[in-house]
Amino acid sequence: MATVINLEEIKSILKNIDIIAAMEEGFIQYSNGNTVVPPVGELLFEKPKGDAHIKYGYIKNDDYYVIKVASGFYDNVKLGIASSQGLMLLFDQKTGVPKAILLDEGHLTDIRTAAAGALAARYFAPKKIKAIGIIGTGIQAKLQLQYLQKHTPCSSIWIWGRNKENVKKFVQELGTDFNIQIAESPSEIAKNCNLIVTTTPSEIALLKAEDIQVGTHITAVGSDTEHKQELESELLKKADIVIADSIPQSKSRGEIYKAVSDGKISENTVIELGTAVQDLKLQRTSEDQITIVDLTGVAVQDIMITKAVYNGYLKNK
Amino acid sequence: MATVINLEEIKSILKNIDIIAAMEEGFIQYSNGNTVVPPVGELLFEKPKGDAHIKYGYIKNDDYYVIKVASGFYDNVKLGIASSQGLMLLFDQKTGVPKAILLDEGHLTDIRTAAAGALAARYFAPKKIKAIGIIGTGIQAKLQLQYLQKHTPCSSIWIWGRNKENVKKFVQELGTDFNIQIAESPSEIAKNCNLIVTTTPSEIALLKAEDIQVGTHITAVGSDTEHKQELESELLKKADIVIADSIPQSKSRGEIYKAVSDGKISENTVIELGTAVQDLKLQRTSEDQITIVDLTGVAVQDIMITKAVYNGYLKNK
Repeated sequence: MATVINLEEIKSILKNIDIIAAMEEGFIQYSNGNTVVPPVGELLFEKPKGDAHIKYGYIKNDDYYVIKVASGFYDNVKLGIASSQGLMLLFDQKTGVPKAILLDEGHLTDIRTAAAGALAARYFAPKKIKAIGIIGTGIQAKLQLQYLQKHTPCSSIWIWGRNKENVKKFVQELGTDFNIQIAESPSEIAKNCNLIVTTTPSEIALLKAEDIQVGTHITAVGSDTEHKQELESELLKKADIVIADSIPQSKSRGEIYKAVSDGKISENTVIELGTAVQDLKLQRTSEDQITIVDLTGVAVQDIMITKAVYNGYLKNK
Repeated sequence: MATVINLEEIKSILKNIDIIAAMEEGFIQYSNGNTVVPPVGELLFEKPKGDAHIKYGYIKNDDYYVIKVASGFYDNVKLGIASSQGLMLLFDQKTGVPKAILLDEGHLTDIRTAAAGALAARYFAPKKIKAIGIIGTGIQAKLQLQYLQKHTPCSSIWIWGRNKENVKKFVQELGTDFNIQIAESPSEIAKNCNLIVTTTPSEIALLKAEDIQVGTHITAVGSDTEHKQELESELLKKADIVIADSIPQSKSRGEIYKAVSDGKISENTVIELGTAVQDLKLQRTSEDQITIVDLTGVAVQDIMITKAVYNGYLKNK
């Protein structure tokens, strides 16, 4: 019978596994063409408004296949329930037998996104990080910061958020672990930081090309649709290296989609993350380069984190 | 936290709920346009050969949405594992919160199919049933027979199967509850029975128009692809009433698809099950009519049976 792993157990297992390494392996498998990921299934609801997405797939010749269900019901907050809900299912790839149900309530999606940010920093951030700039104050802003600690000991942080109240809360929550300064604008982040992570659902570019200093690395996490944009298209033109987690997805969403649509960069100059991590020549080669990694979220990340948690569970047993 | 209901509990709950009524309500909702059922998701596997299908949807303004995962790995028998595997997931339609995980191992799909057969008999079989004819000896043959008992007390059964060994087993297993006679051919079934259920994966028509007597009802369960066929196309032409569980599906698979392709019947004469059960004029109106219900399997059946089992579970608690 399938094992059910609840959120508390998942959080405990996550402490003992290397999710960044799992993401790296996943992106490599993806870019090498070893994953099978059909189009996402979607259910839309009207009363109240909500949506559910079903993502599924597998790595060829692997042990498992994975299905992820993730929903967003924005009226849930009125009921004191998280707007994001969901679970992960893991099945034996050779028999179809269900092996595990991870009742993660959307947490693993947050974690795999943060871990991809840390992976991006590992391969593209400059060696010497002066300060880390975080744009946005939500759960992803916090997790990106926490996972970046696995890459760098830099504790000098700049934060910018549109809502001052949320900025204050962010500082209260994380201020004891970090030396956090509040920026007046995204531009002030750009002036003080050479590792920047953008985590907002903004539809207006926040970071401008003219503000970014040489040697800066930016991981853009927020935009995953055709309308969202955190980086000015000109900034992608200014960058020496532009990386997409998924080149096919970058043709229809995210920062790269915007910059290509605006005629600022050519699709052909974009490199896929899983390809770049396998080839030193495609990674940062000097401290002066400006690098951008655009993360729109790839199903192989869900496959890898579900496998990693289940393997962690089996090890503990 | 979501409730996990295992197969043993599911079987126990099924004893106390009216699945045929649940199917009736589901088919009505479906034919009335009140269901949302996106295209089926599919994963195909090579080593070993297998497939997984993800069906999902909901009834509008209902309490839940449902996802079903069903896989077939035909090498499983070598490992002593059932080739069919799967589970059903039930979520709150208003918040997305997972409510229940039914580890049914494919059993609920078998049951909802058998219950649809009994529903078809309720509305289309002649009043006086001389004998029930079953074509095929698999799990669906047995379940159809068992569920028909909820409609008729007729215990005179004729069975035909291609494999004599399987026929013998079928009689051994069910012979104590029924008076079962073995037919030499599908034609002998047609001569002796006026309620016939076909349950094989045959790709060659088994029942011929010339053999079928007036007043016979046939439920065709086996064909659910474009290649499978149990009823000669001429037989659908001979029938007075031809019913599809899903008119859209009947355009690409099942007995009706074959008969229309062969130019024997027009699509326009086919009536949908959920429409017919709401309108006496569309049901059997005389003991002499020949009626055919072609079941290809509709996602609303999965939605309804999952809901019914969960509601049965809540009642027992």
